[in-house]
Amino acid sequence: MRRPEVAAAVTALVGTWEGQGNGDYPTIEPFRYREVTRIGEHPDHPALHYEQRTWKLTSDGEEVSHWETGLLRISSDGSATLHNAQGGRTETMRGTWFKDGQGWVVELVGTGYSGDERVVASHRSVRFDGADLSYEMRMETINNPELTLHLKARLAKVRS
Amino acid sequence: MRRPEVAAAVTALVGTWEGQGNGDYPTIEPFRYREVTRIGEHPDHPALHYEQRTWKLTSDGEEVSHWETGLLRISSDGSATLHNAQGGRTETMRGTWFKDGQGWVVELVGTGYSGDERVVASHRSVRFDGADLSYEMRMETINNPELTLHLKARLAKVRS
Repeated sequence: MRRPEVAAAVTALVGTWEGQGNGDYPTIEPFRYREVTRIGEHPDHPALHYEQRTWKLTSDGEEVSHWETGLLRISSDGSATLHNAQGGRTETMRGTWFKDGQGWVVELVGTGYSGDERVVASHRSVRFDGADLSYEMRMETINNPELTLHLKARLAKVRS
Repeated sequence: MRRPEVAAAVTALVGTWEGQGNGDYPTIEPFRYREVTRIGEHPDHPALHYEQRTWKLTSDGEEVSHWETGLLRISSDGSATLHNAQGGRTETMRGTWFKDGQGWVVELVGTGYSGDERVVASHRSVRFDGADLSYEMRMETINNPELTLHLKARLAKVRS
């Protein structure tokens, strides 16, 4: 069973989230995207499962962009671990989580990658309460040797 | 749009699968498990998403065991790529797929890992038609330096 402080954060996270974000990076054209992310729990398992889908917003409408899935674990000692699978790579990220007056924050740093030799470092900062979720994702690659903002999005929970 | 030979395999794979398997390894006690795996597609994206959950069957009932999620891509050139995230690691696996008289076969070999230093090599062989799916998973670790059968299961499609 989860400790109360973990259970409260899990309850706030679980659900279906929708919103929009901005993508940018020195090696690409800036873009705007729509996102649908579903986060679910599994009774008696300490992790959460998520599935994130995004669509690039274009002048003609939208086109399928990113698809990502993973398992996130937040522990009562304040540590957090994320294992994710994307279309072209996997990442292991480790970090911390905490609660402040506005809600919860999860800070994650990439500690391992597979499937893509270009990624050097990655960082994710996620802030959420039970209704809103926002994140920033920074990345360093062999072509851009500095941790640089890549994605920034705001989502609202549309289903618990 | 998917080529017809890829679309037929995707249609056979997509759905919810349930069944049982056996786990064994030189470093653990053999066990039997129940499995529920859901495989879904995303219009216009070339990959498939899956979420696999297993429960160890014990004398008292069952207990939550493995949770895994990932993206699998089978391409018209006969190649296959899997990126998965598990509770304690990620894997990138590459290989081939083909169709024979009994159905489809996907053969995957691990080419990259993150989050777990113990894994040296892994291999998965999956066979399916539209109704049945069976797989074998072999693994080599630093404590068992030889590719050894770890999991073997048979599932039936319970929902398309």
